[in-house]
Amino acid sequence: MTQACPATVGQRLDEIETPALLVDLDAYERNLKRMASALEGRAVRLRPHAKTHKSPEIAVQQMAHGAVGVCCQKVGEAEVLVAGGVPDVMVSNQVVGGSKIARLAALAGQARLAVCVDDGRNVAELSAAAAAVGAAGVTLGVLVEIEVGCERCGVAPGEPARVLAAQVAESPGLEFVGLQAYHGNAQHIRTVEERRAAVRRAADLAAETAELLARAGLACPVISGGGTGTLPFDLEAGVLTELQAGSYIFLDADYARNETAETLPGGGFEHSLFVLTTVMSLPRPGRAVTDAGLKALAFDSGPPAVWRREGVRYTGPSDEHGTLEAAKDASLGYGEKLLLVPGHCDPTVNLYDWYVGIRGKRVERVWPVAARGAVA
Amino acid sequence: MTQACPATVGQRLDEIETPALLVDLDAYERNLKRMASALEGRAVRLRPHAKTHKSPEIAVQQMAHGAVGVCCQKVGEAEVLVAGGVPDVMVSNQVVGGSKIARLAALAGQARLAVCVDDGRNVAELSAAAAAVGAAGVTLGVLVEIEVGCERCGVAPGEPARVLAAQVAESPGLEFVGLQAYHGNAQHIRTVEERRAAVRRAADLAAETAELLARAGLACPVISGGGTGTLPFDLEAGVLTELQAGSYIFLDADYARNETAETLPGGGFEHSLFVLTTVMSLPRPGRAVTDAGLKALAFDSGPPAVWRREGVRYTGPSDEHGTLEAAKDASLGYGEKLLLVPGHCDPTVNLYDWYVGIRGKRVERVWPVAARGAVA
Repeated sequence: MTQACPATVGQRLDEIETPALLVDLDAYERNLKRMASALEGRAVRLRPHAKTHKSPEIAVQQMAHGAVGVCCQKVGEAEVLVAGGVPDVMVSNQVVGGSKIARLAALAGQARLAVCVDDGRNVAELSAAAAAVGAAGVTLGVLVEIEVGCERCGVAPGEPARVLAAQVAESPGLEFVGLQAYHGNAQHIRTVEERRAAVRRAADLAAETAELLARAGLACPVISGGGTGTLPFDLEAGVLTELQAGSYIFLDADYARNETAETLPGGGFEHSLFVLTTVMSLPRPGRAVTDAGLKALAFDSGPPAVWRREGVRYTGPSDEHGTLEAAKDASLGYGEKLLLVPGHCDPTVNLYDWYVGIRGKRVERVWPVAARGAVA
Repeated sequence: MTQACPATVGQRLDEIETPALLVDLDAYERNLKRMASALEGRAVRLRPHAKTHKSPEIAVQQMAHGAVGVCCQKVGEAEVLVAGGVPDVMVSNQVVGGSKIARLAALAGQARLAVCVDDGRNVAELSAAAAAVGAAGVTLGVLVEIEVGCERCGVAPGEPARVLAAQVAESPGLEFVGLQAYHGNAQHIRTVEERRAAVRRAADLAAETAELLARAGLACPVISGGGTGTLPFDLEAGVLTELQAGSYIFLDADYARNETAETLPGGGFEHSLFVLTTVMSLPRPGRAVTDAGLKALAFDSGPPAVWRREGVRYTGPSDEHGTLEAAKDASLGYGEKLLLVPGHCDPTVNLYDWYVGIRGKRVERVWPVAARGAVA
């Protein structure tokens, strides 16, 4: 249910109703350019993850900066992206359930669509659904997901992946596209050397599996994976053909807690996503309560950082409140507005209907989080 | 941005697209009746918290079961509730910021509206805004919030509350209504005796403050507070004139972890809110991955409970996945649908656009989470 936009174009920052989801357009655009320059001259392609932003507008801007398409996790997201003009979408996830698979197949009639599998039954269902679209059927790209350390979905690398890939290749309506080899857990390993080692192991597993498949006549034009936290190591390992980094456009507080690799190409990314909040209560010296709590921020990766306000910490949320503790010389004012850097950008974005794009201290544009709530 | 409804009326449970937010209508209706019977013959009034459900339809049903109106936390919620036909709304929270206060005052021209304060500057702003509506101004009910253990907003009980109440009583456009004395932290104290003691302390502070105000000529027709977790003790203490319980209609997994008081009137409440999810991957024996993660459930009060599936535990979420561990004799099937009891109902509801109301194994009706995302 869409709520009113908290801002209008031309407003000053301090006039925006809070909580509001803000994008610092200068920082965001620098992040787009940084990624483009990091990948310049390399064979690896960028297919950024749209689960981060849920916005066709942002996806189109990413493609204008060199991305070949985007990823997403849900059919509902893919529908919104395709409706918003994105021509190439990979669902980097399994799609299970008759009506959802039918929606995915229908969408493959409108744009280039791919999906991941890790179960032979799912392959059979996808094939049947692709054949059932229109008179001639459609072709759905399929990647076999292998487990490379994420401890989530995926078949084991090697022979189990070959068996499943062979089934895909033989299935009408499906085109075997390659391997999905995402190591989600590696993204937030704090130290550079441990993160590099985890990526190296995942890359080796993906490379060995691709070679096994090639010997069986199953070429893998795509090996997809990687993320913002592992970008320099993904490039260093050189196995992935498509990078799925998503958070680079916004950079959340948790990614900022990673030890940064000196090898990060093009310099680091910077925070461009903020939640604007208002101090609504000053119950005692050193404490303030703001209007952004569990329904305005995601806390799974820790609390937000308070932006450029020395000595002020966000210490705890309740549903609609956030408690701040301020050092003695950092007193907070009644009605004061603060910028918070979300601990985790993806589920924070999913709480809002609108992006408020600011340039300096003015609202330049607002646009919808069009796939917000597209969980199915 | 409103997403498509995952169900249609008449569908079977296993045909609903997942994740979906389900209400077991039989259980929900029993909860409505249980609360009505618990309060039968008592002077205390029920003003349930609509931040739980964000639905004017549910608010109207609560009023049909004896509630005098509802609470909510945000002006945006109040707007949706009033637009949906709710005649009496108390914002049990501070409203800070010029445009928000103007919206609140405007709404007071359409329904009975009250709001909480804990700062004299806020009182002055509310008064000015109430006077500025239309030609004659409007009257806004105001409660002084006192800190009774919640460690959030509120002035100290006693003299500070009297000073603020006197300011309210003297302010044009404002009507001093009484005290807000909510002890949020007490709701989830696990043992009966500790919970009872916390409620008793809060009630004593509220009663003493109300007496102090009465001696100063400031009658408190309303002393508002309480919750689902403390209901029997709120009744036992006998100080509150209005109860703000919200979760009783749904009952989340965290409330179910409370030790239950023998004194709970009308029997305990029961789970009526569920997230329906699908097993989308079976990566190894004893493990399954479902399609409900951080964007489909709130985790601030722990993981969801798996409903009536012995030996199956939800062990960890990522953005769009949930990992389940199953005991040896509890194997999960590919595509199987499971019901999850959310750890915390309020922020879980806020992730969905639609309630899917089921009776037995059929969809009986669907209705919007109309104030979903109304954070401002």
